[in-house]
Amino acid sequence: MQFRTDLAAEAHQFWNGEVEGAELTELENKVVKATRLIIHTEKAAEQLGKPKGTYITFENLALSDDFTDAKEKILAIADEIRFLLPSSGSILAVGLGNINTTPDAIGPKSTQYILATRHIQGEWARAAGLDILRPVSVISPGVLGQTGIEAGEMILSLVERLHPAAVIVIDALASRNLSRLGCTVQICDSGIVPGSGVGNYRFKLDKESLGIPVIAVGIPTVVDALTLACDILNITDSADEILGSKITPQSENMIVTPREIDLLTERGAKLIGSAVNCALQSSVDYNTLMSLVS
Amino acid sequence: MQFRTDLAAEAHQFWNGEVEGAELTELENKVVKATRLIIHTEKAAEQLGKPKGTYITFENLALSDDFTDAKEKILAIADEIRFLLPSSGSILAVGLGNINTTPDAIGPKSTQYILATRHIQGEWARAAGLDILRPVSVISPGVLGQTGIEAGEMILSLVERLHPAAVIVIDALASRNLSRLGCTVQICDSGIVPGSGVGNYRFKLDKESLGIPVIAVGIPTVVDALTLACDILNITDSADEILGSKITPQSENMIVTPREIDLLTERGAKLIGSAVNCALQSSVDYNTLMSLVS
Amino acid sequence: MQFRTDLAAEAHQFWNGEVEGAELTELENKVVKATRLIIHTEKAAEQLGKPKGTYITFENLALSDDFTDAKEKILAIADEIRFLLPSSGSILAVGLGNINTTPDAIGPKSTQYILATRHIQGEWARAAGLDILRPVSVISPGVLGQTGIEAGEMILSLVERLHPAAVIVIDALASRNLSRLGCTVQICDSGIVPGSGVGNYRFKLDKESLGIPVIAVGIPTVVDALTLACDILNITDSADEILGSKITPQSENMIVTPREIDLLTERGAKLIGSAVNCALQSSVDYNTLMSLVS
Amino acid sequence: MQFRTDLAAEAHQFWNGEVEGAELTELENKVVKATRLIIHTEKAAEQLGKPKGTYITFENLALSDDFTDAKEKILAIADEIRFLLPSSGSILAVGLGNINTTPDAIGPKSTQYILATRHIQGEWARAAGLDILRPVSVISPGVLGQTGIEAGEMILSLVERLHPAAVIVIDALASRNLSRLGCTVQICDSGIVPGSGVGNYRFKLDKESLGIPVIAVGIPTVVDALTLACDILNITDSADEILGSKITPQSENMIVTPREIDLLTERGAKLIGSAVNCALQSSVDYNTLMSLVS
Repeated sequence: MQFRTDLAAEAHQFWNGEVEGAELTELENKVVKATRLIIHTEKAAEQLGKPKGTYITFENLALSDDFTDAKEKILAIADEIRFLLPSSGSILAVGLGNINTTPDAIGPKSTQYILATRHIQGEWARAAGLDILRPVSVISPGVLGQTGIEAGEMILSLVERLHPAAVIVIDALASRNLSRLGCTVQICDSGIVPGSGVGNYRFKLDKESLGIPVIAVGIPTVVDALTLACDILNITDSADEILGSKITPQSENMIVTPREIDLLTERGAKLIGSAVNCALQSSVDYNTLMSLVS
Repeated sequence: MQFRTDLAAEAHQFWNGEVEGAELTELENKVVKATRLIIHTEKAAEQLGKPKGTYITFENLALSDDFTDAKEKILAIADEIRFLLPSSGSILAVGLGNINTTPDAIGPKSTQYILATRHIQGEWARAAGLDILRPVSVISPGVLGQTGIEAGEMILSLVERLHPAAVIVIDALASRNLSRLGCTVQICDSGIVPGSGVGNYRFKLDKESLGIPVIAVGIPTVVDALTLACDILNITDSADEILGSKITPQSENMIVTPREIDLLTERGAKLIGSAVNCALQSSVDYNTLMSLVS
Repeated sequence: MQFRTDLAAEAHQFWNGEVEGAELTELENKVVKATRLIIHTEKAAEQLGKPKGTYITFENLALSDDFTDAKEKILAIADEIRFLLPSSGSILAVGLGNINTTPDAIGPKSTQYILATRHIQGEWARAAGLDILRPVSVISPGVLGQTGIEAGEMILSLVERLHPAAVIVIDALASRNLSRLGCTVQICDSGIVPGSGVGNYRFKLDKESLGIPVIAVGIPTVVDALTLACDILNITDSADEILGSKITPQSENMIVTPREIDLLTERGAKLIGSAVNCALQSSVDYNTLMSLVS
Repeated sequence: MQFRTDLAAEAHQFWNGEVEGAELTELENKVVKATRLIIHTEKAAEQLGKPKGTYITFENLALSDDFTDAKEKILAIADEIRFLLPSSGSILAVGLGNINTTPDAIGPKSTQYILATRHIQGEWARAAGLDILRPVSVISPGVLGQTGIEAGEMILSLVERLHPAAVIVIDALASRNLSRLGCTVQICDSGIVPGSGVGNYRFKLDKESLGIPVIAVGIPTVVDALTLACDILNITDSADEILGSKITPQSENMIVTPREIDLLTERGAKLIGSAVNCALQSSVDYNTLMSLVS
């Protein structure tokens, strides 16, 4: 497959849904369009280019609104995040990416909306009625070029010190289709693998490497330039072979992003941050949670 | 011509240089590659989709450096800006575009580097040795959606009050070719016409509308999505006709921009701002000017 | 009076309310504490150091909340702004100050919340049901050192071109008392005079200079350092005379501001922007207006 | 001592230099005024309110310039930092504080100027001639309220994983005197103790807690409000006792900062970041280092 995508649903679509060992179901009773793809076998994982696991994809999220009608969408996403998490224990939320590069900033920006609660505990919290909060730590490890430390190393060292029950990693994704930018959310329990996401990680972030469940949440913000070209020109897979020889070398590693990427990143970050809060603090009502982060 | 470009040199290249009434010359003795295109006739203007006038294009500007070796490039650009300006009188420098939309922000960001000097005058300036400064006013009129005022209206009202000898307008441009983004500068004396630039202006900004010379300076920061697709796939003009029917509707108004757009915009703004300062304050030495804006 | 304050109510308080020709009344039926001070005579104006006119002061505004309980406060402020404005005609809203200096940024930041509507008109607006909007233009003229243009010159040139029915100017203020920073709003119909505000204007902005009503809205964000010193040490007016000789020279022009000035400025800007929108667009309901600016 | 200060030199001055067990010397041959205070005994440490150790204080640093004449100052500071560090081994540089609160942001902002080099190693670095670089990691741990993790916990977990030879912590400080804000740098080898700095740390950061040398570098950005009041009014220590009863309760925890704090923080961060780079990368020449971070 020559299309680059971080969305398992797009990879599945590429094979017209004919992937042995992978199972796609539409989520019912949802206010938003959503699917669950389970990759059962290693062979299916290889065919789709994604690790075994469960991938929930929310589509057509109208993020352009002012969040007054976002409640049902946020709660639907929160439900799926909560379902993949252990039912109790503290959580480490991690925003991957470079906050200074707009299309890569959705991870760090999301963490600005996530309520850190690990330090609110003990007698004082009980007295204030805050002992209902699930303990949450929040970090943005930055990027290797600016820190000299792999995000994975920093996360692993914190996991060893804080002993969370699970990690939530948030990252910007690449999709095949421009129409998905900013309005699709993917949640999965297989973590982050090297080479995925908009940034470039050499360190795998999953249950195997960290020893605890790793839930990845992402929104596509970029499209690979060659993928875009084919998509715009509506080139079919066979035509692509013919055109393959015509591809100019400079486009090989180029990534494109829409003009309104600043706005799209802000909204996506607020959507994810809000959904993570609702997933983690289910004993606090929606309006209170939203007022705490705005 | 189905390629959208704000660069006259690209439009000229599209016709393989065969445009009657237009004259292209390479600028000699330059440390950077530069051309001067003069559009002499209305017929040539129509063929190229650009008003009559002089267009200087600097190419392959290495903006990725730290400005320690930028001196010769900045001075070369400054020379051409100065050449198009009246030799004396005050100048109004205008940064067009939306500072909150990264690819459209190069105008407002450039003005942050331009030295405003109109208010430094009189006895005090003479005593301080600052009466050598050319009077300059600097504004960023913002965008219609945020101000309710056309940039052109705001500029015209200031021209009527301040009576500058000329206006310099700085704007982000669209190019045909990805490889030009951030490393090409176009200077022209024909102003800004509606529909050009990355933003959308309904008000013409030229000598006819403002009554004084209007020098436009721009750097391409975006490529039209369809143009990009053809460029990436190296589609020839004839092949394009065949593929025309395959173009998906959603791409019609889409604009794309590279991932490192934040960095590219910052550097482009500093390059233009520095060149404008050098063009206007020729009695101040280069190092002093650069130190005042960093 | 050696205390510097831009708040007429504080100046009135300094004289223990004994100012002939000035009349102070508490506004009734308000959810927030508010007073109206009318300065009737030139003599009272001189004694108070403020031009003749009406000054409404809202106190103890709890800006630290999340704006979910801000509705009544915003509407109360909006009522007073609307009362001072002409009942019809377009409005020019102006944010004075330097957006890059936190305590001086409240004007420009407020304008980011004000809806520009002047360009939404004609057949299209009628069809969309938007012809109920009052036409509003919004600008931030910047500061003299960065533009070379006095804010007053820019406003006057726009008033001459746009012919608004009134101008609203928003500015950061200096108060005498630290406890007022960020939680007091002053509205007046006497405009802005040179030397007031946190910035420094040489150009008067009032009905006389602009030819139309000028409503000023401000929030104190700084305290003069000497004023602060006396306030903290609770020095009475007579004690002050004794201490006068001890004042160190360096503090003469120093201005101080609280640590949380970033947050305070953001909230103050949103409060003023929202109140101005509610004052101007009284045909649109509160929730819709708030959703348009968040 | 009722004056709050994080500067050991100011504490020493408070006692008119008469502190048994503490030794103050002026640094000679310096282009900037600088002193070295060594606190030898526990008794002196108690009297001065600072842990035993060496404190170098640079004064009257003209940070308002454009860094073209900053070279000698930066190199003088770098020499003292280097002197306190182990001569080899990797370094972890840490910026303490909240990047969103201007007067507290000097730590995180400084780290943006510090070159991370730990990831540049091996065969590739040798081939590129970069094996001369001392390995440096750089982090900004954020603040407890936003992360749920004490800065000290995060640093300790990274120290255990990365095994640096020493830690450099950068923090905003409180001084007694307004005239020191932004133009004094303190370097010490005693780390950071709870309650110092502008932020509030509960976790001690020193050789005892981290097991390796901890060099603290700071610039004062705030003055305690009561300290300021006494300073402005030039109140002597005896007068202070009399005035003590007049202090208004609200000022107890108030902190003040100058109006130009945004500019001051930017420049201070660049000064410290540059000095740390020069201290750590002594095999790279000054101009190259400066060009890499601008």
